[in-house]
Amino acid sequence: MNESTRRLAERRERVFGAGAKLFYDEPLELVRGEGVHVFDAEGRRYLDLYNNVPCVGHAHPHVVRSIQRQVETLNVHSRYLHEGVVRYAERIVARHHESLERVVFTCTGSEANEVAIGMARAATGKRGIVCSDRAYHGNTELVHKLTWAGGRPDPELRAVRFPQRYRPVEEGLSDDELCERYLDDLREAIESLTASDVGLACLVVCPLFANEGLPDVPGDYLARAAELVREAGGLVVADEVQAGFARSGQWWGYETAGFVPDIATMGKPMGAGVPFAGAVARAELVERFRKHTGYFNTFAASPLQAAAGAAVLDVIEEERLDRNAREVGAHLAEGLRRIDCPGIGDVRGRGLFLGVDWVNDREARTPDRDGARRVVNRLRERGFLLESAGAHFNVLKIRPPLVFGRDHADLFLEAFEETLREVSRS
Amino acid sequence: MNESTRRLAERRERVFGAGAKLFYDEPLELVRGEGVHVFDAEGRRYLDLYNNVPCVGHAHPHVVRSIQRQVETLNVHSRYLHEGVVRYAERIVARHHESLERVVFTCTGSEANEVAIGMARAATGKRGIVCSDRAYHGNTELVHKLTWAGGRPDPELRAVRFPQRYRPVEEGLSDDELCERYLDDLREAIESLTASDVGLACLVVCPLFANEGLPDVPGDYLARAAELVREAGGLVVADEVQAGFARSGQWWGYETAGFVPDIATMGKPMGAGVPFAGAVARAELVERFRKHTGYFNTFAASPLQAAAGAAVLDVIEEERLDRNAREVGAHLAEGLRRIDCPGIGDVRGRGLFLGVDWVNDREARTPDRDGARRVVNRLRERGFLLESAGAHFNVLKIRPPLVFGRDHADLFLEAFEETLREVSRS
Repeated sequence: MNESTRRLAERRERVFGAGAKLFYDEPLELVRGEGVHVFDAEGRRYLDLYNNVPCVGHAHPHVVRSIQRQVETLNVHSRYLHEGVVRYAERIVARHHESLERVVFTCTGSEANEVAIGMARAATGKRGIVCSDRAYHGNTELVHKLTWAGGRPDPELRAVRFPQRYRPVEEGLSDDELCERYLDDLREAIESLTASDVGLACLVVCPLFANEGLPDVPGDYLARAAELVREAGGLVVADEVQAGFARSGQWWGYETAGFVPDIATMGKPMGAGVPFAGAVARAELVERFRKHTGYFNTFAASPLQAAAGAAVLDVIEEERLDRNAREVGAHLAEGLRRIDCPGIGDVRGRGLFLGVDWVNDREARTPDRDGARRVVNRLRERGFLLESAGAHFNVLKIRPPLVFGRDHADLFLEAFEETLREVSRS
Repeated sequence: MNESTRRLAERRERVFGAGAKLFYDEPLELVRGEGVHVFDAEGRRYLDLYNNVPCVGHAHPHVVRSIQRQVETLNVHSRYLHEGVVRYAERIVARHHESLERVVFTCTGSEANEVAIGMARAATGKRGIVCSDRAYHGNTELVHKLTWAGGRPDPELRAVRFPQRYRPVEEGLSDDELCERYLDDLREAIESLTASDVGLACLVVCPLFANEGLPDVPGDYLARAAELVREAGGLVVADEVQAGFARSGQWWGYETAGFVPDIATMGKPMGAGVPFAGAVARAELVERFRKHTGYFNTFAASPLQAAAGAAVLDVIEEERLDRNAREVGAHLAEGLRRIDCPGIGDVRGRGLFLGVDWVNDREARTPDRDGARRVVNRLRERGFLLESAGAHFNVLKIRPPLVFGRDHADLFLEAFEETLREVSRS
């Protein structure tokens, strides 16, 4: 770390307090971004394979101009009428399944999930939530309870084991049998809630199980899970904060998973870095929630959010970034699968959201968290930015801006292969 | 309402759902803002006496340029180093009392209050919260419990009657005696929590009691309240979301109220409409909270927030808006007090945050909510925007951008007096 970066890191720790985590063993001071690249204080360029907030690329000219125009014109709260806000609301609702007719805007994904759970509770009159045991849905008190909730008892919560083929709950089962095993977990959670006086309000789930490590899901788990929840009188919340906005090659994660949620929450890429999130839902759910709470959010549903959000939709649509995610994502996944390296246990994911499960032992599939960190740090030195995540923190998370092209993928694949050779030698 | 406004309101209701409230009997479609003025779709100009998010004025050129520059340069999350983010953190901490040394950034005031309560709970190991019975601190599940909590039982919450001179809990007391009466309420709340297994974590309070209706507070209520809370092992959270950033003529509401909080939360004006909020606190509180939670907020502590926030600080400092708030606020308050109208029961507040308590009967001090609404709607027709609030919704809330000048105050006073004559005739 050079002297100026070290001083900045010290100043940051002094004012933010210890524990405000930075990426990489050698933290990165960024000063500029453009498309799929970011630049550090010394002018060095990095290929960004991690950031999905700038999903249409860093500082996309159309997004930049839209925000700039709005900020010099007007930015007020949502108790005035504004054409741009209403137009954006109509566009985002139209992008979803036809049953999701209304929207509540917020500033963060945490707030959107708060709203979703509030809607489900208002509609069902019950309070119980089911989530996966290695989920993440935000940082407020309510949704923080859902973070890695497995094994932490809470009367209003049941955490079920997330479905996966790579480290299945039981070996030797067919795909359908394995799916059934995971659904049994869910049945048990539902029964336990409905038998208590808490009752079942909703299932909250990321349709790609992003934080769990992008597992390949056996059978038609999520479609079946949605049925089970509804049969028990509950609602299904799809958390599209990571999965949404064409990341998977489909607009919404729930489309890849074959179910229609009652409520879908959105966030990260929605405003290209202007804090913007929200929840779309069936009409009666939103009406009841608004009546119940009189929900108002000072900064949300603002002309600035709408201008940023509309520009993001424009770019995804005009540049056909959903198709790009499918095509470049498939090319990248294929390239990753061709690499012969004992550390690569599994390559998973959809579109431009891929995970490489890093292992000590391919047969035993032993998660290698330290190895994954070494790869991440070595790639950062080479000018390629990604991070590790997943239930064992050993999954290399590859999630570049959606303007990532085939040439970027090839550059990365070459650097990745060289890095793996180096790391395995060291 | 003209046809185009009506159509927009219908489209809005269709996509947001019934219950998404609009201001004024005849909703306002805004298209542009500049300084203390906003403009509707027909080009009509309104004097804005209500909005504190654009506290340095709508579309202030320095704020606009700062946001525009940042958005075309870089906007990333807080796990990279960024000079602008660290510099802003240092500036906002330096603006506070020296004991408040660390900051956690969020996107909304609700999130900032979540963080504050989380800090207090982590530090004390207790969960109980005391707030006023007509408070508002946000819209997430946790802080929503504090909304108008009087009379709604919750094992983790005690709501005390807010202190006031105008409609005191008992007539005929001296100022000090009245203060004691309100402090007795607080003592009882504290004892009730500490006697239960919930314990006392904190008092959460807006130092201006903005939502309660900006009451004149008897004695040194808040300084004494802070002592009582600390004697019982609790912490004091000042919610500066409305009071902060020179609104009262002092930088922070707690300065006007003569106490130093353990934690101060900020929001609304902080980013001039870019969602931006945060909590400053004593060092050990932030460190313990970070360690306890690993708090991370995707959109918060971003270069965009910092650029907007720094520009707001620049303008308040360079244009001496704290002094302007004191001087113009005093002039405005004096003008309001000179108006002879039976509806005006009381004129209260500090700086450019004033409340006019609208009554049916001056002797009985009967709140006149409908009358206040008529005044608000008639002023809107005349081109002056304010709203009503307070414990009885009968307090005209006057809270213009801080660039509000003496000439604007005079224009308003003239229109206000004419409106009152009209309304009292009708």
